[in-house]
Amino acid sequence: MEKINSKDNAKIKEYVKLFSSKSHRDKEGLFCVEGIKLLKEAQKSSVQIETVFLTASCLDRYGKELEKLFQKTNVFLIAPELEKKLSEQKSPQGIYAVCRKNVSKFDISSVKEGKYVMLVNLQDTGNVGTIIRTAEALGLSGVIMTAKTCDPYSPKVIRGSMGSVFRMPLFIAEDEYEAVESFKKSGMTVYASVVQSTAKSLSDTVFSKNAVLLIGNEGNGLPEDLSEKASEKITIKMAGNTESLNASMASCILMWEMSK
Amino acid sequence: MEKINSKDNAKIKEYVKLFSSKSHRDKEGLFCVEGIKLLKEAQKSSVQIETVFLTASCLDRYGKELEKLFQKTNVFLIAPELEKKLSEQKSPQGIYAVCRKNVSKFDISSVKEGKYVMLVNLQDTGNVGTIIRTAEALGLSGVIMTAKTCDPYSPKVIRGSMGSVFRMPLFIAEDEYEAVESFKKSGMTVYASVVQSTAKSLSDTVFSKNAVLLIGNEGNGLPEDLSEKASEKITIKMAGNTESLNASMASCILMWEMSK
Repeated sequence: MEKINSKDNAKIKEYVKLFSSKSHRDKEGLFCVEGIKLLKEAQKSSVQIETVFLTASCLDRYGKELEKLFQKTNVFLIAPELEKKLSEQKSPQGIYAVCRKNVSKFDISSVKEGKYVMLVNLQDTGNVGTIIRTAEALGLSGVIMTAKTCDPYSPKVIRGSMGSVFRMPLFIAEDEYEAVESFKKSGMTVYASVVQSTAKSLSDTVFSKNAVLLIGNEGNGLPEDLSEKASEKITIKMAGNTESLNASMASCILMWEMSK
Repeated sequence: MEKINSKDNAKIKEYVKLFSSKSHRDKEGLFCVEGIKLLKEAQKSSVQIETVFLTASCLDRYGKELEKLFQKTNVFLIAPELEKKLSEQKSPQGIYAVCRKNVSKFDISSVKEGKYVMLVNLQDTGNVGTIIRTAEALGLSGVIMTAKTCDPYSPKVIRGSMGSVFRMPLFIAEDEYEAVESFKKSGMTVYASVVQSTAKSLSDTVFSKNAVLLIGNEGNGLPEDLSEKASEKITIKMAGNTESLNASMASCILMWEMSK
């Protein structure tokens, strides 16, 4: 097993670049996975693991368990002090992998049936991770994201999703207006979730079998001209003085109703 | 307006102690509120604001708006460098208040009708804040917490709740077993949310008008002997490979169904 001791090693630098730069992840089609729990989730999924870095103590602890993985992957033993470069966690976990994205095989025009959520310009990595996790738990068919939504392959989204990112079909919609047109043309019903007292109450909504639910940005909601294009505008009627539910809570309730 | 320039000032030290120590908050019956948005929420609610600290630039900006508050409160002008002591935020907001808790007037035996959520030993401040916020948005009657649940008056819960902590009736249950008995004796139905395939599906559950929903700790769920004491055990049937929904998402779906 090859050892890496220098933080100036090209492979370490490449990992750090993938970790911190969305454009580099996009260009290379690769992303980073940190920690044994997420790595095991990646291993169980169809995600291809290309490189693993680990400390000697991690090798002691998980070497046997990961034997099969190590046979088909480039594995490097790293000096513990390199973890400061590789991790943003308070307690770094000693194991890091570079994996290949599997979004490329999906195409927006392939979304013709099933139940989907579409995230329109969401910026909070915690929200996006939680929504992907919840969408999987509730049995949705996939998660569509606009190009301006934060990268599902960012380390925080992956962590927040508890590995759902590896398993859920993920789609990037380059143009959300065209995407909505395409869904409607395919016979799907597009629901825009809005905070408007004039919109239809979620409690009165019976979702179609083939449906796309649009969720807007945390601060601004959906662009008005986009929600106008939807088949229906729906809203969660609220009590109390809270301005609104936060984006992930509202999405959770909407996805739950849609999944019924 | 009195000025404070030293970090060794007794009032500053007292604020920091309230900010960081639950037992001190409990002893004094006081808590801290940071930032103009939360302070305005506190002002609109029935919470009593006892002391305000603010920087000169904050006074310039909000002095007029807060004139009425300042007439009945102790207000201190603080040197900007003191903010390092007062705030854990990356961008401190320049205004800090000490407020009086209003939990004391509630008594567990007063919970006889309405719809409540009871948090059993939840440890994540983000989850607790979000659940209190969601409970308010969905029109629940109040939030009950076991003594081992994290303090609803901790700065992170207050921030996460977006001020719902000031408005929602909050109850502390010193003994959760006695509390469940008391609810049942009052004719309320107690629902234990569990992750068990043998439990009743949430989709088949019609909640009583007077109901208490028990939510368990993030890692361990509800103690088994407590969920056995409940009137019914209910579960969210899940698809996919996700271990479970996270505590706040599961609570959100359960509270939504209960609020119907």
